[in-house]
Amino acid sequence: MDDLDARTSELDRAHVFHSWSAQGALSLLPIAGGQGCTVWDHSGRTYLDFSSQLVNVNIGHQHPAVIAGIREQAAVLATIGPATGNLTRAEAAQRIAARAPGGFNKVFFTNGGADANENAIRMARLHTGRDKVVSTYRSYHGNTGGAIVATGDWRRVPNEYSRGHVHIFGPYLYRSEFWATTPEEECERALHHLRRVIQAEGPESVAAILLETIPGTAGIMVPPPGYLSGVREIADQYGVVLILDEVMAGFGRTGEWFAFDAFDVKPDLITFAKGVNSGYVPVGGVVISDEIARTFDDRVFPGGLTYSGHPLAAASIVASIDAMESEGIIAHAKKIGTDVIEPGLRALEADHPVIGEVRGTGVFWALELVADRATREPLPAALMGKAKAELVARGLLPFIADNRIHVVPPCVVTADEVATALTAYDEVLTLLDKEVS
Amino acid sequence: MDDLDARTSELDRAHVFHSWSAQGALSLLPIAGGQGCTVWDHSGRTYLDFSSQLVNVNIGHQHPAVIAGIREQAAVLATIGPATGNLTRAEAAQRIAARAPGGFNKVFFTNGGADANENAIRMARLHTGRDKVVSTYRSYHGNTGGAIVATGDWRRVPNEYSRGHVHIFGPYLYRSEFWATTPEEECERALHHLRRVIQAEGPESVAAILLETIPGTAGIMVPPPGYLSGVREIADQYGVVLILDEVMAGFGRTGEWFAFDAFDVKPDLITFAKGVNSGYVPVGGVVISDEIARTFDDRVFPGGLTYSGHPLAAASIVASIDAMESEGIIAHAKKIGTDVIEPGLRALEADHPVIGEVRGTGVFWALELVADRATREPLPAALMGKAKAELVARGLLPFIADNRIHVVPPCVVTADEVATALTAYDEVLTLLDKEVS
Ligand SMILES: Cc1ncc(COP(=O)(O)O)c(C=O)c1O
Ligand SMILES: Cc1ncc(COP(=O)(O)O)c(C=O)c1O
Repeated sequence: MDDLDARTSELDRAHVFHSWSAQGALSLLPIAGGQGCTVWDHSGRTYLDFSSQLVNVNIGHQHPAVIAGIREQAAVLATIGPATGNLTRAEAAQRIAARAPGGFNKVFFTNGGADANENAIRMARLHTGRDKVVSTYRSYHGNTGGAIVATGDWRRVPNEYSRGHVHIFGPYLYRSEFWATTPEEECERALHHLRRVIQAEGPESVAAILLETIPGTAGIMVPPPGYLSGVREIADQYGVVLILDEVMAGFGRTGEWFAFDAFDVKPDLITFAKGVNSGYVPVGGVVISDEIARTFDDRVFPGGLTYSGHPLAAASIVASIDAMESEGIIAHAKKIGTDVIEPGLRALEADHPVIGEVRGTGVFWALELVADRATREPLPAALMGKAKAELVARGLLPFIADNRIHVVPPCVVTADEVATALTAYDEVLTLLDKEVS
Repeated sequence: MDDLDARTSELDRAHVFHSWSAQGALSLLPIAGGQGCTVWDHSGRTYLDFSSQLVNVNIGHQHPAVIAGIREQAAVLATIGPATGNLTRAEAAQRIAARAPGGFNKVFFTNGGADANENAIRMARLHTGRDKVVSTYRSYHGNTGGAIVATGDWRRVPNEYSRGHVHIFGPYLYRSEFWATTPEEECERALHHLRRVIQAEGPESVAAILLETIPGTAGIMVPPPGYLSGVREIADQYGVVLILDEVMAGFGRTGEWFAFDAFDVKPDLITFAKGVNSGYVPVGGVVISDEIARTFDDRVFPGGLTYSGHPLAAASIVASIDAMESEGIIAHAKKIGTDVIEPGLRALEADHPVIGEVRGTGVFWALELVADRATREPLPAALMGKAKAELVARGLLPFIADNRIHVVPPCVVTADEVATALTAYDEVLTLLDKEVS
């Protein structure tokens, strides 16, 4: 191991506290650089990144136009407060609004996905005058939950809610919560369940339905045809705001600008982060329908953050959206998904009994692994750990969640890179088949 | 007005939704660039920045070493996920830990101040097994409050708390909540009040006391001698974690690395953001005492975010701390505060009856304005609006909060710049004196 890799590990273990982990036994790959779908350590060992890190590096590592955009803005003005006008910020907002459906013109910027959802929830509550937020058990919307309630000044008061959050089940036919056997049945019953929960909670208390358009970390469950438009109908019927969380699914991941573009649905609020600039600078935000934006024309919006509309982040958004547009990156993600990734994964499914289900779209796929195809018993955690280690040993950075391998490379992945990854998956799935047979 | 200024305003009004504001009547200064304590628009009109934006640009605008650090890191690796090792990130953590007191070695990185407090609260709750957080009414700790509760997956469960937040009054002699007439009395009574609230809430339910070392936006109330050490004693007595929020007060603002360095107190958790890198890239975090860090050695810490330990942010931290150190910026902030700012503000106080109180330290000062020195009635909002407009018209960007002007320039402010600002304040205070006399 190179000196700098050793030094990275040593300093990291001494001083860095890591997310979602017990700190004692952590052993992390040191990463020093990257390009496109590849990253490397200091000693030059390379890895094919089929995780896009946390499914955020949609444009690939170190895209030259985005790096240039950041470097140029840094030379002019790295930071400025949100209570100013700034051209780069305004251009980033304009770029995003231009990709949203008609009737969406304004963007509120945050630092990431969690605070995007925070502010969308705040807008929905203030717009409706109601408290409750309905979301699914199989979801992730971010890790924040208390700073505004700890706050003592007036900014706390409009943000305190005695009644809070209600969780439902979404459609997931492979492990149906509704005893359904067909996509139609799953869709119809999931909608019935949502309607019943809203009725039982009291529709006049429900501010928002918050859904990932395609639940991501939870397992990339593409909703059945009719589900999202059915949710829209229920929201309209009860005067509830529909928030679609596009943090992971948006900006190219599904081969669309917004994942909901492939469905017959229009939300009221859209939250985004990750793919909007591939995380080159921390940023997220909310795209706001004109109707909800108008609520705050002469009423103070009681939310904010120091780095809202940060110019360096804005420059990376402008450069990233422009490059995605001019290089046809969104269309590429769709095409490589349909022509190369899906057929490759279906071939693995045919060969490997350990695969229970393959599902996804674009560059957003899950292999759900099972100990037994008949019972659908999830592959145990120890074997998932083995899968991870074996993939890394083959030079592939995987994304593993529960009993699933998520196949989520950057949108710019090439057919050759997919072929390399499929070989690694194939070898490791062969090992797993043996373990469970 | 330059074309680009007009275009900024037009695009901004069409597409940008702003923090803490009604959107309809916003009129914002377009800012295109800056250097040191000065910013400018596209047509070349300059402003002396005595706000440091949101009291975050401690090192001044466009410090060349920090810009170079960002540009160099951008060329190598702009982003990488938190579940990797990264040398720049580890060096940033090491730089920060080295400025903290003994017994602080690990740093958890976030995107800003709100999520720094979120994660400190999470650590305190899990470390103590208790729920409640005691903080002051006169405080601001960030704007987040619901994303983790909206989340449906397992990450929600360890973050749900039925009992929540309790607010107390802190020491503020000028408007004492305790009928106190001396700093000693205010201190003693504020401690008594804190102890009584903890007793009444049930000490075994209190996880943390969360305080801004010097409350910032709330009015820069430097705590009286003995208050913070008294809080420390109460925390120890009841087994409560003491979190000091150094988001605004830390990294130079008070002429210290940490504001609590000037007091006889050592916290258990320190939250930071703003001054750590002057906000050139969005970042914040928690410095964790060894005792609390050990709690998570073999227990999963259930918190995280996509951009934790972002390399671009880390590079800006390393460059900023190194420049602050080598250029003596912290000591400069202290010296200019004592030698130039304080005497200047005291002279204004002597001349202007509209000033009720002057308080602060370093480059962290408040002028509390009153309609009447005897009754201490706050200056009305309309006159504060006038003060703001008159200061901007004189080329000074002020920080106005309630009935106060916060005098909060970058730490690198020169005596000449202070003199220029004092002239502007003097002229505007003269106008205000007339309004109230
Ligand atoms: C769908 C979704 N929403 C929100 C978030 C939270 O984003 P962040 O980690 O930037 O706070 C994530 C992160 O994985 C996500 O996948
Ligand atoms: C003391 C303090 N804590 C926390 C915050 C929140 O920081 P952020 O705006 O980065 O979320 C602020 C912001 O002004 C602050 O002053």
